[in-house]
Parts: sequence; C-alpha cells; structure tokens
Amino acid sequence: MPHRLTAILSLSAAPARGETAIEELLPRIAAESLERAVRNRGRAELARWKLHGVELELELTSTEVRPHQALLAIQRRLQEALGKSDKVGVRSLRVPSYTLEFPVEKAPERPVGLPIPHHLTVEHKVGRLELRDLSEEAIRDNWPDRAVSLVEEKLRRQSYEGKEQYWTLLGESPRREMRAAEDPTEAMLARAWVRSGPTKGKWFLGPRAAHLLKVMEKIARTEVLDPLGFSEVVQPHHDSFDILLRTGHLEGVPGEFYYVTEPKTRDPAAWERFTDLVKITRRVPTEELAALVGPPAAVSCYAQCPTIYWWLSGRTLAEESLPLKVYDRTAISNRYESGGRHGLERVDEFHRIEPVYVGTKEQLLELRERLRERYAHVFNDLLELEWRTAWVTPFYMQQSGELAEEESGERVRGTIDFEAYLPYRGTREKSEWLEFQNLSIVGDKYTKAFTIKAQRGELWSGCSGIGLERWLTAFLAQKGLDEAGWPEGFQRVALPLPSEPRFL
Amino acid sequence: MPHRLTAILSLSAAPARGETAIEELLPRIAAESLERAVRNRGRAELARWKLHGVELELELTSTEVRPHQALLAIQRRLQEALGKSDKVGVRSLRVPSYTLEFPVEKAPERPVGLPIPHHLTVEHKVGRLELRDLSEEAIRDNWPDRAVSLVEEKLRRQSYEGKEQYWTLLGESPRREMRAAEDPTEAMLARAWVRSGPTKGKWFLGPRAAHLLKVMEKIARTEVLDPLGFSEVVQPHHDSFDILLRTGHLEGVPGEFYYVTEPKTRDPAAWERFTDLVKITRRVPTEELAALVGPPAAVSCYAQCPTIYWWLSGRTLAEESLPLKVYDRTAISNRYESGGRHGLERVDEFHRIEPVYVGTKEQLLELRERLRERYAHVFNDLLELEWRTAWVTPFYMQQSGELAEEESGERVRGTIDFEAYLPYRGTREKSEWLEFQNLSIVGDKYTKAFTIKAQRGELWSGCSGIGLERWLTAFLAQKGLDEAGWPEGFQRVALPLPSEPRFL
Repeated sequence: MPHRLTAILSLSAAPARGETAIEELLPRIAAESLERAVRNRGRAELARWKLHGVELELELTSTEVRPHQALLAIQRRLQEALGKSDKVGVRSLRVPSYTLEFPVEKAPERPVGLPIPHHLTVEHKVGRLELRDLSEEAIRDNWPDRAVSLVEEKLRRQSYEGKEQYWTLLGESPRREMRAAEDPTEAMLARAWVRSGPTKGKWFLGPRAAHLLKVMEKIARTEVLDPLGFSEVVQPHHDSFDILLRTGHLEGVPGEFYYVTEPKTRDPAAWERFTDLVKITRRVPTEELAALVGPPAAVSCYAQCPTIYWWLSGRTLAEESLPLKVYDRTAISNRYESGGRHGLERVDEFHRIEPVYVGTKEQLLELRERLRERYAHVFNDLLELEWRTAWVTPFYMQQSGELAEEESGERVRGTIDFEAYLPYRGTREKSEWLEFQNLSIVGDKYTKAFTIKAQRGELWSGCSGIGLERWLTAFLAQKGLDEAGWPEGFQRVALPLPSEPRFL
Repeated sequence: MPHRLTAILSLSAAPARGETAIEELLPRIAAESLERAVRNRGRAELARWKLHGVELELELTSTEVRPHQALLAIQRRLQEALGKSDKVGVRSLRVPSYTLEFPVEKAPERPVGLPIPHHLTVEHKVGRLELRDLSEEAIRDNWPDRAVSLVEEKLRRQSYEGKEQYWTLLGESPRREMRAAEDPTEAMLARAWVRSGPTKGKWFLGPRAAHLLKVMEKIARTEVLDPLGFSEVVQPHHDSFDILLRTGHLEGVPGEFYYVTEPKTRDPAAWERFTDLVKITRRVPTEELAALVGPPAAVSCYAQCPTIYWWLSGRTLAEESLPLKVYDRTAISNRYESGGRHGLERVDEFHRIEPVYVGTKEQLLELRERLRERYAHVFNDLLELEWRTAWVTPFYMQQSGELAEEESGERVRGTIDFEAYLPYRGTREKSEWLEFQNLSIVGDKYTKAFTIKAQRGELWSGCSGIGLERWLTAFLAQKGLDEAGWPEGFQRVALPLPSEPRFL
C-alpha cells in the first residue's frame, strides 16, 4: 500500500468495556469514512488498531487517495459515537508516522530537504516521504499534501535548473536612428538632474528629471488608460502578509522585500532612554531601537496588483461592471536588489502604474489586444522607440502543464514583455535589451485566491506593469538628454522643461 | 569652582625622568590651552596633577567655560612635547569624573535621569551634574555639553507640562451654510467608496474617492504651486537615519515612525527554510523571518522636507535661483498613530504635497504672503470652506527665547495652522476644528543643519504641508457626498465623477 498513516487518538478515559467498545464502532466508522474519502479511486482500509489504556492507536492505508482527511472524519464520528455508547470523548490526535508515495520522473541530483521531521527516499521512479510527529493542527491544516507538493516542486526545479526562460519574439518596431550612446543616468548625474539617494538604490530627481518622469506618467494615462476606460484607485503602499500569502509572493520572493516594523508603543516614556542616547551621542543606538520595535509586520509595496485583488476580495462583481479596469499610480514599489543595481533602470525604489483587469477570458483577450495597440501607439508615434515584444514563460511553468493552452499553440495565459534597445550597452544583437513594460493574463489564479466572483461564469484577471523609470531610461538612452533631438510628439507633451536650480 | 574635570592620560611608558618630565611641560601647556579655551570668560586652571607610573592624573577647574575642550588640546600638545623631550607618547585619555554646574530656574518636580553614568543634584537654583567614566570618544564627541542641555531641557519640560500650545487666531473665513452633518468617512464606507485597508490606519480608495483625492492634488498644483513658480521634485520615500538625526526628528518622534528593515541576503538558499515553512504551513514563521532581516535601517517617509534639505546639502545656491521653490507630491507619508486613528483624517498613511522654500528672510516673508493669498483663494473661491488661521507655537519654544522676534510682536519664524470646521464633531464653538494645512518659516535651523549656502548672506527656509486626505475630509464634511451640493468652482474641476464598480 503506497500510503500508510499511523495515528494515536487520546481518549478522555479508558472505556469501561475496553476494546469491545472500540470494536463495536471503529471498523464500521473507518470503513465508511475511508469509502467516502476515496470514492472508488483505489482502495483504502483500516489496517489495524489497538487500545493502550486511554490511547487508541490505528493505522490507515490506501493505494491512491491519501487517507489523512478520512482520519479527521473518523475522529469526529468516533467522538460522537463513543460519547453516546461509553461516555468517552476523543481529546486529540497525533500522527507519529505518515508515509506517502508519489511518482518521480528523475532521481534527484542533490538531497532534498524539508523543514519538518521527515525521511525521504527515491527509488525506481517512486518517491517515498515519511512525515513524523504531525500534530492534529498539521493534519487539519493539510501539511501532508503541501509537503508532497513541495518535494515534487524541488525535484522539478532541480531538473530545470540553469535552463533559460522560454522566450519567443512576437514583433519588432522599425529600426531607429540612435541619438545617444551614453548611459542616461550617468548623463543626468553629470548635469545634477538626479542625486543618488540617502539609502540604497533610490534616487532624488531634481526638477527636470521629475518633470520627465511625470510626463511619462501623463502619456501612459492620456494615451493608454483613459482611452480604454480605466479608472484610478489609490491603494495602501504597505502589503500585508496575508495578501502576500494568498498571491504566493511571500514564498516566492521573500529576500526581495523591504520589511516594515511598527513601534511597540508611541509612549514617550518608553522611548526616553533611546531619545536621551540620541541627544547625547548623535548616533542611533541600534540595540535599544531593536528592542522598541516589533517583528516585521508587512512589506513596502512590491507590486500593486495584490492589494487591488484584496480590495475586491469576497465581492461579486455585477455583469455591467465587467471587465473591471482600474489602475494604481500612487503606491511606490520597493525591491531589495542587493548587487544588481544599475542607474535608474535597476533600482530599489521605482514608480509604476499598474493597470489591473478582471473579466471573462474573452473580455481579457480582447482587452489585451487593445492595450497592445495603445502601447504600440505610444512607443512608435510619441516616443519613437526601437522596441520589440516577446512571449516569456519561466521554463518550469512551461513544462508543468500549468499553461496547457500553450501546447495547442494558443497564447492565452502568460506574459508579453516589451523590450527596448539601450545603445550604451552595446550592439543590438549582442547586448541585453531592457524590459521596460509587460502585459499579462494570469487566468483564475488570483480571482480564486481572493474569492472574486461574477454573477455567472468564471472570472479571470490580468495586469500590466508600466515602469516609469524604465520608460524614461529607454527614451533617454535612445534619444539623449538634448530636447532638440526628441520626437515632435514627445516635445509637444514635455516642453517647456522646468529650470534647474544653479549650484555653485 | 563650578566645573571640575578629573582626567587620566595613559602614557606609552613611564618617563625615565619621572615627574620632572611632566613638571617641565604640563603646567605651561595647560595654562596656555585653558587660556585659549576660556578667552577671558572667567577663570580656569590646572588644579593638580600626579604621575602614577604610566598614568598621568590631572584635574582642571573653571568658573564659566567648560574645560573639556581644553583637555583635548592639552593631550595633543603634551603628546608632541613629551615625544620630543622623553620619547613618551600619550596613548589615550579617560575622564573618571566631570562635575558641571548650571543655573536652574525651578527645583525639579520629579527626578531627572540620563542614560549614562551620572549624579545630579539641584540646590539653590544651581544644578550640579557629575558625569562619570567618560571615554575619550565621549569627550571628543562633546557628550558633556549635550548632557547638560538635555538635563536643562528635561527640567524646562517639567515646568511647562500639561500647558497648551500657544494659539492666536489670525483670521476667519465667512460663515458658510453646512450641507452635511455626517462623518464623511462613514458616508464613504456606506457607499463602498473606500475600504479600510489590510494594515492599520490605511485606506483603499475606490474610483470616486481616488478621483476626489487627485482633484485636491490638481487644485493645489494649478491654483497654488504653479502660479507661484514652484517646481516638482521626486524624492525617495525612505528617510535615512542620518537625515533624521540632522533634523532632530529621530529624537523627537521615534515612536511615530514606521521602520524599514532590509533582508540580510537575497540568496534563495538562505531563505529556503523560511519559504518551505510558508509553503507547508501557510503561515509566516515569525522567528525565522526576524533572523533573516537586519535591524531597522531607515524609516518610511514621515515628512518630505528633510529629504529635500538633504538633496541641497553641501551645495551653494546661485543668487538667481533664490528663493528656491520646490515641492514633492510622490513620497507617501506614514505615522504610527496607535490609538488616535479616526477615518480618513487621522491615519497611518497619507498623501501630502510638501512645498519647501529656501531664500533670504525677506524673500520668505514675501512668499508666505503670496502662499496665504493663494490658499485663501482655494478655500474661499473653489472649496467655499468655513476655515480659520491661527499662529501656533509649542509652549516651551515660546518660552525658551528661540522665537525672540515674537517678543517684539513680529511673527516671523513659526507656523500658521489652517483649521476647518467639521460639523459632525459638534458646534463651531465647542468642537475641535481640523488642522488641514499649515505654513511655516523655520529660520536657519535646516539650512545650517544641512550646510545649504547662498552666494552671500544668510539662508532661511520653510515649508508647508498640504494634506490631501484632510482637504478632502474638510470639504466632504461641510459639503457632503452629493455632487449637486458642491460649489460651482469645484464642480468645474471635479465633474464628471468616474463610475464605481457595482458589487452584488
């Protein structure tokens, strides 16, 4: 039997009738509960049981469906029945050992670990995971299924490690004459248009750079979002852990967040020693401070869509409001970039407009085409960029069957990247182009995670990331800082430029 | 003698000539150094000295100027002279005891403490502070003067505790007919225009509320800032500790910050146990997380002006760029409000435009009048609010002589508060009006702290806080949510309203 679960149920008292009391109830209850759980998928049985004083030990085995959900049903029904027949309750349960089998395509190249007690072997394309000392809470909370999924995911990642993401060219703009060859951030630094900020990877934009960033925002709104009927929302710029648990970001990119901690109290008396030390030493007493704030409680916005989904969570959208089209341009995004920072295009803080759309599959496919047209209009007619689009998918998703439509040649769920040539990085052929924009349809992943419903039918969602610093970098890298060389359409929106303060 | 400092200088070796070597040098060097430090303000002397092996103990006394700066000069000159005469160096110094006297107006009502070793007595209007075991660094870093200032400040605060801030009415708008009586946040909640956010004291604004907030922003820009020649800048939304040390915020309001911590690493291997636990348990493992992030390293923006001053730090502004007029509307402000939250007007996250101006005193006084005119135009002609202005000063500043011009009846440095009547809080006379705007001139406090200079003459600065949530609350509290009741001037800017999604 592939799955084998040993459990111990603690009774409130030893039944006066001893094993007879159990014999009368358990085999029947177990058979019914297992049957209901399995529903003809393979076999499942109560392999053995034994009463030791107040502890009832039992073992469940099954061939296909895992038996731990049945265990909870057995516990519940036994509690009822034993209460009636023998005035004995079932206080709690624990699972000293639970062995689960699952198919494995390839033997692991390196050992795979889990942060809970376990033993894992892989032989002849079969993985055998023994979980040990599971609490009742862990069973209720379904740790066993998640532990198996995690092992499967780790094995899958091992086999695709080092492979590129899947990338297919979708389209290319005309080739453009480049009017600059220098790194635009360096050029702006030389003119004091920007100053490298007081904390890592963040920039202070003086009047001209700020103006140009806001011009990009204005273009995105007036040329893309307003014509397509998007409405602005304003969302909090802290993302709660609960939201990031639901989207999967907390397990996906925890090393890329800026975490936020709150003071334990505002009471000045509690802070007196801290403030006195600051006043006398003019330094931050780090240990004092650490003791006065709580543990990380949230993160600074990583992307805007999670909190927009949260806004809609638990709500049912009227037919007439579909597709729902909203965007946020207020929350500021932070990503801890560590070593990869460069100029204004790879930073720890950036300003992004994030349009989010919720509707039927057909509505979103249609909207994606309209968005592509409007973006193309901006990049071709106003910014006159040299750019291209590509269909991108992480390799492991490509292979996991999550994007089944891909196999039929349809491109439905997934992401289109917009990339711009940056002359300062080298030739068109050999240099890495800058991803300055993306456009995604994510299927029902988030509408399900946040329980967002339609009056009828399935709701999908998607989002697009308009990175304003990246629009600006792409533009200045190709057109330079001299306004005379800028395309006429852009000049009409951007000029006159504000004057910069003169520093001596 | 009011001030008495005992120091021990550690020599690199006992001088071969014993006390003779010291006798030849120290009395002369000490006399010269003390004379230079004191410059005829009272007397100062080397009261005694004694050589114990490699330790030279000495005692300095003085009547007015504190003698610790002279001690550093004595150390430096003795090091030079002893090196030449006896090949002996001065390795380090420490101050086992340093007693300082200062006048005190009133005996303390409660004991006053310091976070460094000390003993404090107050008798007959004289405070006597003995600091113990001061290191060389503490002397160099001038802890003694700061410790005395801190004691003086604590005593001053005790005497003004519980007293109101100084408040004088400057002007009042005409009385207006109130078109609403309800709390506007409650009214917006009832219509689902806003949703209370996923973390404390933060709001999600749906399309209508977001639109109205941005209309307020637009009015502030087009009716106040653009006509007066302000330029927009974009600043990082994290404030560094260094900046907040320079402005005094870190000692002033440390319990009101949202602190930011960075991951210790982005390396997924280091985060594997954390992510595995999240995947299996769907909870945040708090202790794991605390071990993976660093100590608080910065704060989420509290006010925008500190980082604007930082942008100008160390720079000299050309005459033609004065007065410099800039504003930021991008950084989002956070204040940890603890128990005091209410609706959209007292929140942990808010959106504010902060204009900052730097120029001569005359330029700033002139600019303040122009700003008051433009604000009055907005509040009277567009929003048609019932509002008033008041001159406000914290009571202890009022008394400390920091605002000397006040005594001559001139109102130069200080803050004008703009307050609006909120009908839902009660009658005009008895309810607390909402401070929805302020306007300050701060003198040279920040230009000095950040070394911002003019080609010639003294530079002053000031700032104004335009709280968009507060403008919106004041407006809706007086005019209601029904657009038909809104003033014509506001309607012209704000209508048509975007439609809200319909939830079932």
